[in-house]
Amino acid sequence: GEALIDHHRGLRQGAPEVIFGQGKTSEQILRIAEGLLNGNNNVLVTRLDADKAAPLVERWPEAAYDPLGRTLTIVRHAVATTGRGPILVICAGTSDLPVAREASTAARMLGNRVEELADVGVAGLHRLLAHLDQLRRASVIIAVAGMEGALPSVIGGLVAAPVIAVPTSVGYGASLGGVAALLGMLNSCASGVTVVNIDNGFGAACAAARINRQEQP
Amino acid sequence: GEALIDHHRGLRQGAPEVIFGQGKTSEQILRIAEGLLNGNNNVLVTRLDADKAAPLVERWPEAAYDPLGRTLTIVRHAVATTGRGPILVICAGTSDLPVAREASTAARMLGNRVEELADVGVAGLHRLLAHLDQLRRASVIIAVAGMEGALPSVIGGLVAAPVIAVPTSVGYGASLGGVAALLGMLNSCASGVTVVNIDNGFGAACAAARINRQEQP
Amino acid sequence: GEALIDHHRGLRQGAPEVIFGQGKTSEQILRIAEGLLNGNNNVLVTRLDADKAAPLVERWPEAAYDPLGRTLTIVRHAVATTGRGPILVICAGTSDLPVAREASTAARMLGNRVEELADVGVAGLHRLLAHLDQLRRASVIIAVAGMEGALPSVIGGLVAAPVIAVPTSVGYGASLGGVAALLGMLNSCASGVTVVNIDNGFGAACAAARINRQEQP
Amino acid sequence: GEALIDHHRGLRQGAPEVIFGQGKTSEQILRIAEGLLNGNNNVLVTRLDADKAAPLVERWPEAAYDPLGRTLTIVRHAVATTGRGPILVICAGTSDLPVAREASTAARMLGNRVEELADVGVAGLHRLLAHLDQLRRASVIIAVAGMEGALPSVIGGLVAAPVIAVPTSVGYGASLGGVAALLGMLNSCASGVTVVNIDNGFGAACAAARINRQEQP
Amino acid sequence: GEALIDHHRGLRQGAPEVIFGQGKTSEQILRIAEGLLNGNNNVLVTRLDADKAAPLVERWPEAAYDPLGRTLTIVRHAVATTGRGPILVICAGTSDLPVAREASTAARMLGNRVEELADVGVAGLHRLLAHLDQLRRASVIIAVAGMEGALPSVIGGLVAAPVIAVPTSVGYGASLGGVAALLGMLNSCASGVTVVNIDNGFGAACAAARINRQEQP
Amino acid sequence: GEALIDHHRGLRQGAPEVIFGQGKTSEQILRIAEGLLNGNNNVLVTRLDADKAAPLVERWPEAAYDPLGRTLTIVRHAVATTGRGPILVICAGTSDLPVAREASTAARMLGNRVEELADVGVAGLHRLLAHLDQLRRASVIIAVAGMEGALPSVIGGLVAAPVIAVPTSVGYGASLGGVAALLGMLNSCASGVTVVNIDNGFGAACAAARINRQEQP
Amino acid sequence: GEALIDHHRGLRQGAPEVIFGQGKTSEQILRIAEGLLNGNNNVLVTRLDADKAAPLVERWPEAAYDPLGRTLTIVRHAVATTGRGPILVICAGTSDLPVAREASTAARMLGNRVEELADVGVAGLHRLLAHLDQLRRASVIIAVAGMEGALPSVIGGLVAAPVIAVPTSVGYGASLGGVAALLGMLNSCASGVTVVNIDNGFGAACAAARINRQEQP
Amino acid sequence: GEALIDHHRGLRQGAPEVIFGQGKTSEQILRIAEGLLNGNNNVLVTRLDADKAAPLVERWPEAAYDPLGRTLTIVRHAVATTGRGPILVICAGTSDLPVAREASTAARMLGNRVEELADVGVAGLHRLLAHLDQLRRASVIIAVAGMEGALPSVIGGLVAAPVIAVPTSVGYGASLGGVAALLGMLNSCASGVTVVNIDNGFGAACAAARINRQEQP
Ligand SMILES: Nc1ncnc2c1ncn2[C@@H]1O[C@H](COP(=O)(O)O)[C@@H](O)[C@H]1O
Ligand SMILES: Nc1ncnc2c1ncn2[C@@H]1O[C@H](COP(=O)(O)O)[C@@H](O)[C@H]1O
Ligand SMILES: Nc1ncnc2c1ncn2[C@@H]1O[C@H](COP(=O)(O)O)[C@@H](O)[C@H]1O
Ligand SMILES: Nc1ncnc2c1ncn2[C@@H]1O[C@H](COP(=O)(O)O)[C@@H](O)[C@H]1O
Ligand SMILES: [Mg+2]
Ligand SMILES: [Mg+2]
Ligand SMILES: [Mg+2]
Ligand SMILES: [Mg+2]
Ligand SMILES: [Mg+2]
Ligand SMILES: [Mg+2]
Ligand SMILES: [Mg+2]
Ligand SMILES: [Mg+2]
Repeated sequence: GEALIDHHRGLRQGAPEVIFGQGKTSEQILRIAEGLLNGNNNVLVTRLDADKAAPLVERWPEAAYDPLGRTLTIVRHAVATTGRGPILVICAGTSDLPVAREASTAARMLGNRVEELADVGVAGLHRLLAHLDQLRRASVIIAVAGMEGALPSVIGGLVAAPVIAVPTSVGYGASLGGVAALLGMLNSCASGVTVVNIDNGFGAACAAARINRQEQP
Repeated sequence: GEALIDHHRGLRQGAPEVIFGQGKTSEQILRIAEGLLNGNNNVLVTRLDADKAAPLVERWPEAAYDPLGRTLTIVRHAVATTGRGPILVICAGTSDLPVAREASTAARMLGNRVEELADVGVAGLHRLLAHLDQLRRASVIIAVAGMEGALPSVIGGLVAAPVIAVPTSVGYGASLGGVAALLGMLNSCASGVTVVNIDNGFGAACAAARINRQEQP
Repeated sequence: GEALIDHHRGLRQGAPEVIFGQGKTSEQILRIAEGLLNGNNNVLVTRLDADKAAPLVERWPEAAYDPLGRTLTIVRHAVATTGRGPILVICAGTSDLPVAREASTAARMLGNRVEELADVGVAGLHRLLAHLDQLRRASVIIAVAGMEGALPSVIGGLVAAPVIAVPTSVGYGASLGGVAALLGMLNSCASGVTVVNIDNGFGAACAAARINRQEQP
Repeated sequence: GEALIDHHRGLRQGAPEVIFGQGKTSEQILRIAEGLLNGNNNVLVTRLDADKAAPLVERWPEAAYDPLGRTLTIVRHAVATTGRGPILVICAGTSDLPVAREASTAARMLGNRVEELADVGVAGLHRLLAHLDQLRRASVIIAVAGMEGALPSVIGGLVAAPVIAVPTSVGYGASLGGVAALLGMLNSCASGVTVVNIDNGFGAACAAARINRQEQP
Repeated sequence: GEALIDHHRGLRQGAPEVIFGQGKTSEQILRIAEGLLNGNNNVLVTRLDADKAAPLVERWPEAAYDPLGRTLTIVRHAVATTGRGPILVICAGTSDLPVAREASTAARMLGNRVEELADVGVAGLHRLLAHLDQLRRASVIIAVAGMEGALPSVIGGLVAAPVIAVPTSVGYGASLGGVAALLGMLNSCASGVTVVNIDNGFGAACAAARINRQEQP
Repeated sequence: GEALIDHHRGLRQGAPEVIFGQGKTSEQILRIAEGLLNGNNNVLVTRLDADKAAPLVERWPEAAYDPLGRTLTIVRHAVATTGRGPILVICAGTSDLPVAREASTAARMLGNRVEELADVGVAGLHRLLAHLDQLRRASVIIAVAGMEGALPSVIGGLVAAPVIAVPTSVGYGASLGGVAALLGMLNSCASGVTVVNIDNGFGAACAAARINRQEQP
Repeated sequence: GEALIDHHRGLRQGAPEVIFGQGKTSEQILRIAEGLLNGNNNVLVTRLDADKAAPLVERWPEAAYDPLGRTLTIVRHAVATTGRGPILVICAGTSDLPVAREASTAARMLGNRVEELADVGVAGLHRLLAHLDQLRRASVIIAVAGMEGALPSVIGGLVAAPVIAVPTSVGYGASLGGVAALLGMLNSCASGVTVVNIDNGFGAACAAARINRQEQP
Repeated sequence: GEALIDHHRGLRQGAPEVIFGQGKTSEQILRIAEGLLNGNNNVLVTRLDADKAAPLVERWPEAAYDPLGRTLTIVRHAVATTGRGPILVICAGTSDLPVAREASTAARMLGNRVEELADVGVAGLHRLLAHLDQLRRASVIIAVAGMEGALPSVIGGLVAAPVIAVPTSVGYGASLGGVAALLGMLNSCASGVTVVNIDNGFGAACAAARINRQEQP
């Protein structure tokens, strides 16, 4: 017997090939980006340090580099908003902002409307509860938190929408580089919270985009 | 300043309170179930051993106990299918079946149409690829796998729908009680795969139900 | 040079010698308890299984065995309440009750007024917030939680009193026998939360009693 | 139903908002400090490297930077001593001094009288025992130790006051960055010792301040 | 080139072949013991449960089974004391006694005079210091402790003799089955403390016997 | 009794002594290489950074330094191909290339014909399946992968030849420096996959060369 | 584009489908075995406890159950020896025998001549060196060892053949259920040793069979 | 009751106070060394980098800095050899030399005759066996090894003297910074091997000196 599979992963996943900048030289990224642009694609580079971004911005002055989220975007044709509703990216502390920003930039590039909410950690509940309406309007919530990673549990108890938890490596000592937050989120007492890798804002955005697609299979 | 939050978590999450059977006596479960039934609810008990299920089935002969998934369900009013499309529960090996079954039973109780696919591990690709059409018709996929937990990565590369990965404690030695599968899934090279706790079929079903809701916030 | 230290640890710590029941036979415990009672002490045995408690209750009919917290107490002279204010023992789920009960029994035996609050997990915030007044009246709070262990962080943000966090081994998979909750509590974003060993309700009670002493050194 | 919570976390906790310097630029810290000073607050910055402190000291010549504890303080109105008794900060080795110093600076800023005792490790007991009187006069003891972290157990057996243990990352190899000391302290055979995160002198000071408050709830 | 090695490991190590009882059936142990006795050897079996010891005691009524240390000894020819001085086996708590007893039985069978000291944990220093003379008379000290394992550090600071630390699996939660005590001992701040595997009283006795040999190589 | 062993490890293993460059200075490597060349050997240096390679290339202009695989080779007499068939080195992502290249360079130096295949990760199956013929022609396959390390499982299910899995440290967060990939490979559901240390391309090449030897013992 | 893959994994791998007995009931195994026998296959069941084997032996009296290696074999047509040379299975201690036996039974069923060597641990080198000739005659060596797992390193230095290392869970305390042996083997200083999962005698046999195939791809 | 302990730890341990250079500035070390020299002591500084040693050598031209072992010694009065016999320091690979050298320098400063043996790893047994006589002449053996740490097991089987095992952090990947070697040594199948912390050559020397003392207590 035989089975067929086709070659068009891009189409199947609904997501552009994104360049993972970490561990690549500016030259390598430049070459790959050139190929993508020639194919008339928009380009998203993640985990890109400022010094490595410089030659790219010089080559393509229309490129936008974001030093906070460490992403570079080159938009050749406007990204159509295809998501069903807003994706809300929430983070607990200011140190979690880089990961949150990576998530929101990626979610926008994948065709979603994105809202951001920062500094709403669980040790200051009133700050979170002041935004209950916004929380309940969201189509998907990406909750980013380091240290004990309790934010997604609280949010999961407040809304019915899908909640994607992103642990961050923010912290020291027994935070074990984000493992404490990761374990906390995997053991969330709010049923139906799902988790991605430590600091993986990009992956959370991809998952949210999969969920937020308008068309059905 | 003040912030308001209301008390109706059940409504907000769209999910019934489920009884977590592990660590509870038959008597305790009986009492809780009675309360729920009096409130005119359907009942789902998870992680329930056969011997602890017996007194419950004796008390309510209409109760259905599933020894594979270790769930007990009492359906007083038919569960309306409210999900947008089918949830597909796939597992890699026969030893992963109990976790897969917990997921599919819970997903059905939460108002979803569920399909099941078993024994499609990555070391025998043709078995998985023979079901490509079914994979692509699914609204959400729950991929259950122990050992190295590679199944969700392969599936994530084949479909555009949300993929929820459930690591199982199946294995021995360096599987570390499911931690190997968990880590594998968190590091999936297929973007947008999200993960729940080891053996947490119930949690995956809740996440899938959150995703599959028809109404928008 | 020389240094002097005296032998009266009991006096110094203000706490009775407690019998740690785990790993001891009924006969061993009986012998130790007899010695303490002869010395006119009250007796507290912790981590004592029901079958091992039976011979002790037979020997001393006035002994009180608590199967939930697995403690046995023999009170020969009424315990004077010497603590400054009430110690509040809070737990997140019903499965955390045994550890919470060990804490409250021990705190009472150490001369404190104790209040208990159960089933106030962070995924259902309104249940916790409904008790704000009680929280703020407490002299010391012992917060017991398994799974992701987020409860102490939320409480630490709501009150100014000392908060002692007790992680429990409740959970499965990535809870790693309570390590996830332990790490979460050590990384609490609420400043000034301190932590004891997993399932160590007794230790938390001792710490609370040290804090709650009326007299100053 | 509804529940109310107010917004005044600062008041509730009795502690000023402290700036966590790690991972922030001088510019960011300068901006936050300016806001706090405008609100007529004293300022405490922790985990601040010397080079990042320089622009702050230049801007506010009255600022005091401590290179050992890596803290910067700006005192606009004298800190009233509100604590019930002295907080004693003890450390085992000279390498533990930075963490001990962070603790004592923070405890002073939080309104406490602080005493310090250094180089009293358990391998040279006579050095510790020579200070028994000072130990027994303390209202709260913060015991800082790296390597095997045995100091708090010995102290907990000598005094009746609350003992807060701070593991440090001092050591190499099997010290696992402070995890060995952390585990040792969590397993202390002296009942009632509580523990904070590795190197978290600030957190220990906050816990001691919560304990040392004069007023009752 | 060629190198020669001879076959007489027994002679070289100065230690009899000992039977490790764990994981062996009574029949297997009986057969091995028979062989050793035929060769005119004394026999030591370690880690032997009472029920597995019974058939051996029935077969050789002169065999001595110790239920505390779980050893069985058959002495055909009196063991000559060949060690240079007394080996002192100290343990912190009563739960550490089984491991301490395994060590002292083995040390005696290996030709050493042995002294024992129990219940001298570091949270009650005066109990330990009351035995300073005995400590300083010892040729080698074996210090057995569970939980935080601090005993060897304190002893190492009090004596000039070799100190062998034996961590035990006594404890729960963050004791991680003895790993906390093991790490504590490896990080001892008393220079020159060496460590053996968790619960390895036998190994400590062998090391002490190697050290205590009268003859020089 | 006596036993003989001879000194000619080089001969027995069929492999030249290779210089492990990591942690050695250029001077040390130069001295060792000189000795080997004087003995008329070819030289292979692994884990050699570019700056440390420079003095060696200056000294021996015929030396070939490969910055990707970080190897330096000096071939004095052509390496005879003695292997039975081609060794195929496959890697999942471009970041795995350095490890794959170390493996292929070493395998060639050990007398094997080597083929390379890159960028064939399991999230894009068609890319791998497009090379099925090449996979099935290989005598031994070395499968290099980071992140979840699923590649060897899929390959092991497609071919009957020996598959050696090399986990790489590529990834972040929960990849734990390659431990996730290592655990995944050890738990491979494809029977008969064997594993070497993280990033150990050299070791995989040695194992493949042992397997691919033409002569029988 | 399209890619084809066929369904005949059995053929490709040269190995029969083997039944993994762990976690299956006798009834399940009976049903699967029946299917395989109907298809005229030989049957191998691994990890099968004696009580679960009984119904199978009753059903097929020609079945051979081995309580040491916990395997059951039903040989309908004699297994042709197709391997190139003998596979030598060596183990360090008698407690490692079950894993070694699983390996040798599986290797024989896969068409190989097998030799066994036991009790040749590295602490008694002469016992190992006495068998040097046998070691050097082997086509593939499977080295089974628990505790520190040093045996494969020593063997890898003595022979040029492929060495497959199998760590066992034999040991206690810091052996961490076989993880110590596993890590030791992965870090072997003998180049070209490969490793399988803890206690995975079956996997080692499959790997050895892949290596020992006579035909070339 | 009272207990006396005196202050003369130096005398009791028979070892000089040594300066642990890691984490100290040149100025700090200079000040401490000055104090020791004024008290007419010899000085040993360990873990001292070359650049931090320079000011010390400038200040005391008679100081000897060893860049390999990273020690600095100032000998004001010749060290009397008081040990009973030679201490033999053996290491497996050249990368283990720094730790071995720290051990031998410290052992000499503590009054012992020291011999060194390098590059005798277990994968090349003949190199080790060629030195059997030297091994058997030693009073104490310090065996230093990284990677799988098997050397002490082999040596422990060859000699009757005490063997102190020192794991090193040499290796990569699954060596986990020396933890693999540490675990291997703790699980040594040669009875009576004791272990110190990773890279702790100094501690091994102290232990060997305690063992090698001529006088009895
Ligand atoms: N199998 C399961 N795994 C994890 N959580 C569960 C499971 N079954 C039920 N739950 C959760 O446990 C809650 C009930 O806990 P309890 O009140 O202890 O019965 C439910 O609301 C679910 O959120
Ligand atoms: N539940 C508990 N958890 C931890 N420590 C305990 C507990 N109960 C008693 N202890 C401690 O164990 C000591 C008695 O130990 P033992 O002499 O072995 O009975 C008491 O003094 C307490 O410090
Ligand atoms: N050294 C420290 N360790 C742990 N937490 C700290 C430390 N210093 C400040 N914090 C906490 O960090 C908070 C400020 O964080 P941020 O808003 O990021 O500056 C303070 O309110 C404290 O709770
Ligand atoms: N390399 C070393 N490793 C571990 N401990 C050491 C080392 N060198 C010195 N020490 C110990 O550190 C103590 C001195 O520490 P310090 O007072 O910080 O210089 C000495 O008395 C030794 O016990
Ligand atoms: Mg956070
Ligand atoms: Mg699987
Ligand atoms: Mg909880
Ligand atoms: Mg210390
Ligand atoms: Mg102890
Ligand atoms: Mg990969
Ligand atoms: Mg072994
Ligand atoms: Mg080595």
